[in-house]
Amino acid sequence: MKDIKIAILGMGTVGGGIYQLIEQEQKNIEHKDGIRLTVKKTLALSYAVDVPEEKKAKDIDEIVNDPEISIVAEVMGGQHPAKEFILKALEAGKTVVSANKDMISQNWPDLEAAAKRSGAGFYFEAAVGGGIPILRALNDSMQANSIREVYGIVNGTTNYILTKMDDEGRDFSDVLKEAQALGYAEANPESDVEGYDARYKLSILASMAFHARVPVDKIYCEGITKLTKADIAIGRELGYVVKLLAIGKKDADGSIEVRVHPTMIPKEHALANIKGSFNAIFIDGSAVGEMMWYGKGAGDFPTASALVSDMVYAVHNAGHPRYATFDNRYEADQVKFNNDWITEYFIRTDVQDKPGVLAKIAGIFGKHDVSIESVIQKGAKPGEESAPLILVTHKAHEQDLRDAVKEIQELEAVVGTVNCIRVEK
Amino acid sequence: MKDIKIAILGMGTVGGGIYQLIEQEQKNIEHKDGIRLTVKKTLALSYAVDVPEEKKAKDIDEIVNDPEISIVAEVMGGQHPAKEFILKALEAGKTVVSANKDMISQNWPDLEAAAKRSGAGFYFEAAVGGGIPILRALNDSMQANSIREVYGIVNGTTNYILTKMDDEGRDFSDVLKEAQALGYAEANPESDVEGYDARYKLSILASMAFHARVPVDKIYCEGITKLTKADIAIGRELGYVVKLLAIGKKDADGSIEVRVHPTMIPKEHALANIKGSFNAIFIDGSAVGEMMWYGKGAGDFPTASALVSDMVYAVHNAGHPRYATFDNRYEADQVKFNNDWITEYFIRTDVQDKPGVLAKIAGIFGKHDVSIESVIQKGAKPGEESAPLILVTHKAHEQDLRDAVKEIQELEAVVGTVNCIRVEK
Repeated sequence: MKDIKIAILGMGTVGGGIYQLIEQEQKNIEHKDGIRLTVKKTLALSYAVDVPEEKKAKDIDEIVNDPEISIVAEVMGGQHPAKEFILKALEAGKTVVSANKDMISQNWPDLEAAAKRSGAGFYFEAAVGGGIPILRALNDSMQANSIREVYGIVNGTTNYILTKMDDEGRDFSDVLKEAQALGYAEANPESDVEGYDARYKLSILASMAFHARVPVDKIYCEGITKLTKADIAIGRELGYVVKLLAIGKKDADGSIEVRVHPTMIPKEHALANIKGSFNAIFIDGSAVGEMMWYGKGAGDFPTASALVSDMVYAVHNAGHPRYATFDNRYEADQVKFNNDWITEYFIRTDVQDKPGVLAKIAGIFGKHDVSIESVIQKGAKPGEESAPLILVTHKAHEQDLRDAVKEIQELEAVVGTVNCIRVEK
Repeated sequence: MKDIKIAILGMGTVGGGIYQLIEQEQKNIEHKDGIRLTVKKTLALSYAVDVPEEKKAKDIDEIVNDPEISIVAEVMGGQHPAKEFILKALEAGKTVVSANKDMISQNWPDLEAAAKRSGAGFYFEAAVGGGIPILRALNDSMQANSIREVYGIVNGTTNYILTKMDDEGRDFSDVLKEAQALGYAEANPESDVEGYDARYKLSILASMAFHARVPVDKIYCEGITKLTKADIAIGRELGYVVKLLAIGKKDADGSIEVRVHPTMIPKEHALANIKGSFNAIFIDGSAVGEMMWYGKGAGDFPTASALVSDMVYAVHNAGHPRYATFDNRYEADQVKFNNDWITEYFIRTDVQDKPGVLAKIAGIFGKHDVSIESVIQKGAKPGEESAPLILVTHKAHEQDLRDAVKEIQELEAVVGTVNCIRVEK
């Protein structure tokens, strides 16, 4: 039996989940893995669960200077002081497990270097997909594959909002308010609804999948705040469901395209049926082909499950930590990022209901090499002068599409904002 | 760089897949994992791919006596001589990776003991779910979970047949013949269509999920050969899709129920939409909740992907092999198996079209504590004396249902076979 003492930094929902889960599963983990995990210290400003006073550390030094503690779980979130605390723990030779996608995705090289210097382990399965063991799978099960694509629904809050908008025909701001009231969205929802959280996760996921460093700022990011119930309803009519997808592709020439944006996918696609706060991640591997993982992407116990799993895994691999893709990876400056990807587009706007408008718009698209697959033009309602115009394009270059849209937006006959949603099949 | 020489036993589809995959991915695996895999020897009666003559071993001894070879991949299939060859390799201290669910599920204790004696590794990710890394996930990512359920579609051939029967309204024997002609089903399809292959896989899957030995002969097994297009069509009308499921449940009292049989599942269930030769496996874990893996369950490269992954994993864990659930497990005689599970039932038969028949049948069910949820009785077609009768029950005990069905089958008014399909929601 290996006796392992741990410390938890941050005792909110997830920290409380770790604390409870270790208590509940301690005997089972002893039985199955020969490891006795015990929480020796916690460090937090506030506590979601009851913790005996003697376990509450007064500062980070009390933890990093305790030779008995070999694993530190960081679930404070945010950049500071999480980064400083993790660096101190790693430098003291303590294995760190963390769920902090924000901080890890933006400081990975520094954290990696610190772990390597001391030989400590550093694992963060919980940072992507909550309880879904996607990072372990990429590291330990896909070694014989070149991953061509990794994409999916990695943010539960936006998926919950989009599911509600779709199921109940409601508008974004309306559903967001309800989600905030129910605790499914945060008081400041920016990180979720603007796609930032998904972008952090894609940075980690794509880095591991492609064995190349994919910095956050290389990822195109567009949130769901501009989506209307009309977009979703018309999408449905055309056979599509709108989801916020994180998409990573490695092209044949080795270049990488990475993007987070609302995406129309065929309603038969497995991702179209992922409802509420669930996450689902697809990969396309050269040997395994298409594969999907589905599960709870957040929440106290699913996330704590991944963190405790990292602890057990770290103990089994102590002395020869498995650093994910740390070694031999391509640094960001060796990677070619492709910002001019090719996809199809759904375009919706309002135009003056008079002759020649469609011809003018179609002409602009044509000039920019964007070819139209289908058009839905409805006459103006009585008493209104403008009418909705919906277009779906064939495959086109992103840059061409943007140039065309910019030009169309400036037409006098175009009275509404030109909304674009990318379509993936 | 670790230089690892391997041998492949069996050079059919999967053996050929391993051989090619190692050639294709050798540089990538060197780059990512610091391991150079080389196939030094092969042993086979026939070869699906070209292999230089000098690599062809004349017998197993040439392989087990070669000190350079540290990993043996067994993909011959069948019981003999696969078992003897694996035992020889393990006893010689060579790590074995295998896809042989049939043999492993029936000889696990012997193989495990041999591996432990020599300290060799023994991995078989490819035995369940092909390229889906479900066994690694159960071992290395679910340590903080007590698994309550594991179930899914684990046989691609029967799923292909059922998908065709459903999509095209065709009968079993008709679709089977086509599947055989196309190479999707074997000339002797027994192992697939009778559910034996799914049973081997469930034995491994349930053993790992529940950390208890689940022998093959403890698993109830019923194949798809008796399903008719009528069963599938009427199921659809009622909102169900028929799939061959492998189901393992751990009840609150610790007893385990394990069964393979055609199952009606609601058409909205994720498994209902798994088409053709794909596999999908659900777990319900105490911390992570519901989770699903989806991917190709068979085929040369998906299966070879799992085998090569096992090789890389074995090298990283050499000297301290991770034996899955070998240690501390509950032996079969310590496990209580529950054969009298509770579920709902779809029942279809033909009855004489005359008064009082339904009352008599309903009375027998009532006597055996089986309560009827819904009945579909259609009048006899002109010129026919019998008419189909379809019943769906509420939750009932398996044994009660069987007793009732036996009694009903003997009624004079019942002219057809009484077909039962279990319903899971």
